[in-house]
Amino acid sequence: MPLEILPDGHLTAPQGFSADGLACGIKPSGLPDLALLVSEEVCSAAAVYTTNKVQGAALQVCRDHLTQPYARAVIGNAGVANDCTGERGLQDAYRMAQLAAAKLVCDAKDVLVASTGVIGKFIPMDRLEEGLGRLQPAPDGGLRFLRAMMTTDTREKHIAVRFGRELRYTLGGCCKGAGMIHPNMATMLAFLTTDAPADPFYLQQQLSFVVDRTFNMVSIDGDTSPSDCVLLLANGVQGGAELGAGSPDEEDFERALNVVCTHLSRSIAQDGEGATRLIEVRVTGARTEEEARQHARTITTSPLVKSAVNGADPNWGRVVAAAGRSGAELVEENASLRICGILTYDKGLAVPFDEAEASRRLKEPEVRFDLDLGLGEGSATAWGCDLSVDYVHINADYTT
Amino acid sequence: MPLEILPDGHLTAPQGFSADGLACGIKPSGLPDLALLVSEEVCSAAAVYTTNKVQGAALQVCRDHLTQPYARAVIGNAGVANDCTGERGLQDAYRMAQLAAAKLVCDAKDVLVASTGVIGKFIPMDRLEEGLGRLQPAPDGGLRFLRAMMTTDTREKHIAVRFGRELRYTLGGCCKGAGMIHPNMATMLAFLTTDAPADPFYLQQQLSFVVDRTFNMVSIDGDTSPSDCVLLLANGVQGGAELGAGSPDEEDFERALNVVCTHLSRSIAQDGEGATRLIEVRVTGARTEEEARQHARTITTSPLVKSAVNGADPNWGRVVAAAGRSGAELVEENASLRICGILTYDKGLAVPFDEAEASRRLKEPEVRFDLDLGLGEGSATAWGCDLSVDYVHINADYTT
Repeated sequence: MPLEILPDGHLTAPQGFSADGLACGIKPSGLPDLALLVSEEVCSAAAVYTTNKVQGAALQVCRDHLTQPYARAVIGNAGVANDCTGERGLQDAYRMAQLAAAKLVCDAKDVLVASTGVIGKFIPMDRLEEGLGRLQPAPDGGLRFLRAMMTTDTREKHIAVRFGRELRYTLGGCCKGAGMIHPNMATMLAFLTTDAPADPFYLQQQLSFVVDRTFNMVSIDGDTSPSDCVLLLANGVQGGAELGAGSPDEEDFERALNVVCTHLSRSIAQDGEGATRLIEVRVTGARTEEEARQHARTITTSPLVKSAVNGADPNWGRVVAAAGRSGAELVEENASLRICGILTYDKGLAVPFDEAEASRRLKEPEVRFDLDLGLGEGSATAWGCDLSVDYVHINADYTT
Repeated sequence: MPLEILPDGHLTAPQGFSADGLACGIKPSGLPDLALLVSEEVCSAAAVYTTNKVQGAALQVCRDHLTQPYARAVIGNAGVANDCTGERGLQDAYRMAQLAAAKLVCDAKDVLVASTGVIGKFIPMDRLEEGLGRLQPAPDGGLRFLRAMMTTDTREKHIAVRFGRELRYTLGGCCKGAGMIHPNMATMLAFLTTDAPADPFYLQQQLSFVVDRTFNMVSIDGDTSPSDCVLLLANGVQGGAELGAGSPDEEDFERALNVVCTHLSRSIAQDGEGATRLIEVRVTGARTEEEARQHARTITTSPLVKSAVNGADPNWGRVVAAAGRSGAELVEENASLRICGILTYDKGLAVPFDEAEASRRLKEPEVRFDLDLGLGEGSATAWGCDLSVDYVHINADYTT
């Protein structure tokens, strides 16, 4: 079945989800900073966490609560990430789940927690508790939830997709990041909801697979945050057969999940701090998919490549050199590179090309590098953004 | 024995070496771009090359000529790196060695080749040949050699050290880089000479060991070049016992090599493009030396850390988060961090500290992070520089 894309869709587009967000005074700016998402039914739940060895308190609570892969609600806050806060920070994160559970009349184990913002500071629990009392989750609240989780984001990043036979189901999603959080962290948080029923183990397997090929292929500056997390809740209120291996809508769901995560990942790269251009790197012909990903990620992370794109310089040498140091195999005589469709390097040799035209194409809002290694069947795509003077201003001209 | 450091020393400070450099028209700027170093005796020779899978033609010639670990001369050029130039580029590099050998009346196999500059272009061999005729290597020519190998370097980076009993021997060195080369590459080339006699296999072993702990611990922007290379020539004209395992001056030589390479490595970091500050990261208490190096290198490469130093922001969270994603072990409860001597993070917890004082110290030309992991005996030091608006200008505002 074809999918139907709802460009304005968001977290509460699927049936049976309500959400809200408001300002409770965690952010000094007075902007929204407290968010709540709740499902009318208990959901199958899956999560993917940061690989950073430093792990925020909220993530520790999610890991604990998802030892049984079910959940009903997510309480989130922006302004304070609750990282590097030790035992007291962990107690605060558990207390967030308890307070939300008391309000929603459910088990605290069914509440997940997400925090983003400054690290090394405690959440002002009195303000959070007061704000929680005022939250009124509603079926139209998906964007209020998102706005209360945003920090240096300059765009609202969300989408929904209808999928399955007769487009019965909806998958909604939103994310924040990965602009660095003023003043401390590059956090990427994504929330996904669907009204399809799903086997939780299947859900986890699919989420891990797709996150590896989407969110984990986004690089703003190579740094990762102790708070990064992707959560997926499936409440099943639209009924029908449970999604799982061999179920009728399996393939449609996997496509929908891929479309939503790809859209959100590209949106994150577009919204990188100081970014003026989205860079898409497609690698083909690598020995394995994993090696293709290594090449693609190394290219999107290279400050030299990112600076060249900022200056619209068709500097193919920097792209080839970045691939050369990725650790994955590259044989010069087999490798070719196209910049925005223009062949610049062919089987290990520089080729003459129209540099003015290439530079013109590099000024478009989306630029693409196609690197073919000519070694095998492995392919991968990664997204990044250019490195601008504004990036340095945003991240340097601040004193804690 | 104590060493004697000659701050103005250079490549021809050791006895029996001559050098020269001049402009032959490879660089459009008309600045010096052709260099020659020659020893009056055949030298034991050692080399360490870039790990980039893309390898410049000059490196391929060095590898070939050093299958017998002896050499008498180095011919070098700046302006054109002779990378990604295929068979013709390789022939040009061999021809450089042949032309130098004809001039010096030696075997072409005894000549090493070094090139740095734009990639994907051919060396104008007629100009090089004409320039070679005018070169007049002399015992005072070490700095002329260096100047002809420089590209975007803003400082001349060189030193010499006297070592051994009665300070009989001298070790001299110079390097270029790793400012990115206008317009294409971050090349780091280092040349080392000594008048001590040495067993070539011992020399190679020591050079590899020290380069791993010095030049390979420098990061300007995480990118590496197809042309990076460190060459060491020992001509033995001062006589005495051959340096080798168990020889009387072994320990002194190893210290001298370490001092010279550390000095040059720090100089490279200080001279990073757009850099205003040297960052030194010392990691202790890692499980192994290799893990300590992983942590130290990840911190010096992090754009968030580098931006924070540029802004004199004592942002300890970014340093801890960078270590957390390095891939090496980090246990929050055991880890502590000092910024310029001030404790900011202690056994996994933020600690109150004088932020104004820390910020003041971060404005010094050299700043230091001490990360103690509290896990074992592994330690390492890495050097880097801050990320400034000028870095982006230098690398973006150019169109090939």
